[in-house]
Amino acid sequence: MSLVIVGSLGLDDISTPAGSVHEALGGSAIYAAVAATHFCTPHIVGVVGKDFPHESLMMLEAQGINLDGLEIREGKTFRWGGVYNNWNRAETTFTDLNVFAEFTPQLNDSCKCCKSLLLANIHPQLQLQVLQQIEKYNHVACDTMNYWIGLCPDELAEVLKKVDLVFMNEDEIKDFTKRKDIFSAARELLKLGPQWIIVKRGEYGAVAIARDEMFFFPAYPVSEVIDPTGAGDVFAGAFMGYLARHPQLCSAVVKDAMRYATVLAALNVQNFSIRGILGTSLNEINKLKDEMLTWTT
Amino acid sequence: MSLVIVGSLGLDDISTPAGSVHEALGGSAIYAAVAATHFCTPHIVGVVGKDFPHESLMMLEAQGINLDGLEIREGKTFRWGGVYNNWNRAETTFTDLNVFAEFTPQLNDSCKCCKSLLLANIHPQLQLQVLQQIEKYNHVACDTMNYWIGLCPDELAEVLKKVDLVFMNEDEIKDFTKRKDIFSAARELLKLGPQWIIVKRGEYGAVAIARDEMFFFPAYPVSEVIDPTGAGDVFAGAFMGYLARHPQLCSAVVKDAMRYATVLAALNVQNFSIRGILGTSLNEINKLKDEMLTWTT
Repeated sequence: MSLVIVGSLGLDDISTPAGSVHEALGGSAIYAAVAATHFCTPHIVGVVGKDFPHESLMMLEAQGINLDGLEIREGKTFRWGGVYNNWNRAETTFTDLNVFAEFTPQLNDSCKCCKSLLLANIHPQLQLQVLQQIEKYNHVACDTMNYWIGLCPDELAEVLKKVDLVFMNEDEIKDFTKRKDIFSAARELLKLGPQWIIVKRGEYGAVAIARDEMFFFPAYPVSEVIDPTGAGDVFAGAFMGYLARHPQLCSAVVKDAMRYATVLAALNVQNFSIRGILGTSLNEINKLKDEMLTWTT
Repeated sequence: MSLVIVGSLGLDDISTPAGSVHEALGGSAIYAAVAATHFCTPHIVGVVGKDFPHESLMMLEAQGINLDGLEIREGKTFRWGGVYNNWNRAETTFTDLNVFAEFTPQLNDSCKCCKSLLLANIHPQLQLQVLQQIEKYNHVACDTMNYWIGLCPDELAEVLKKVDLVFMNEDEIKDFTKRKDIFSAARELLKLGPQWIIVKRGEYGAVAIARDEMFFFPAYPVSEVIDPTGAGDVFAGAFMGYLARHPQLCSAVVKDAMRYATVLAALNVQNFSIRGILGTSLNEINKLKDEMLTWTT
């Protein structure tokens, strides 16, 4: 029932056509972990500086996140600033890595006893370091981004060889494989070893592709996007949180995980930072998921 | 069991990265009618010039298309030339309306006895002329394009008030309604009167939207696009051809119509002109449609 999430924790300055926030909770591990709390106990492995608000740590723990694997270092927390002029891509205004620059992920004993792992979007070298520390996990997944695809594709390929599931955007999977369509791109990735490639297509939903089956899911329609930051992390976190409860990676489980991931991602973009996914009951999430079922059958 | 299709018949010069064709059969009515032959007897109402190849007319009749409503006029057939540098949009190299410039659609008695009508992509004024000639049809649908949305939105709105189903591309429905998302755009169109708005999203599939239900369909993945010309016409033709067999416009029928339309559109883009949808058996089409079912349930 536990999921280890290795990723960034940060304080974000975000500006969108709907407004702006200053030093809001962000980072891939925070988004993914909050989404996962609806299904399991996520353990965050990451680092923050001494300036990270104590009340935020308490809030995350109150949400059911295990922070035993969180390092609190001398120095400042990772900070990122982004402006959205269109919803598909943030323009980065600043990136201050701060204590995150020297992050070396170390899994403690409680993390080693978990059965599922999400390697959120961090340097593939760090993802490999984590993979060397685990044994006998049920489900291991990685996320990534275009930056690493350009910078260190070989190290990323090494990661892909060692995971069961891969989360990638449509453009990322095309870039990485140099294929023009996502289906042949996914087949290339499957050859490396993963069982499932999860292709995220933004407002067009997502496709789960395995060797001999595939499933399409629409995005949950959102009438007003407020802040798209973290939608991919929330998607992966909810997906892996649900998987943590199911030892077998069968297609029925993957399909339900996709639906939950879709619902949580839609909730996320309807408010700034993690506000959209806090305080929504599983009952409410299930209602939205059941609604999705009626659209595709 | 019969469907009237009012639209253009033409000879196309098409160039794509996969090759080119000269004076190939084209026009919305031809694409739509050939697709519809898999399900019903389509009646084409349109016009060609004396130069239109006699053997092409014989071939269309041999496919099961009723051409009693086709005018053959002194003069040259409508001609269109297009080049695809990317798959989403053709660059028009020439448009010679020829006899199509003076086209005034007249429904003969056999057309008036039909029960379904597809107003393919022609001037909304002509679509209105046809609508004045029919009574007691089961299903009336219209297609359109960005050109008419820009030129005569008010006449198009008049058409929309009188039809049961509307086929539009994602961008077209947003342009016409001045809405940013297809769901609120579709709600605007539904207010005018249609029961179903069929939003085509290219490689991302299509969405059928009614007042209190909606259904998403992925595109059928195509490994190599050869010529996208007519894909929208084929989609509408197959959809309406299937509907012609079903007096009730219930959601089960709409869903199957969407699947057939999706399959035929995918077959169409895999060859030049109408070659991709000629000579495919209904048995083969059903296999592809059944495969689609496994991707979304």
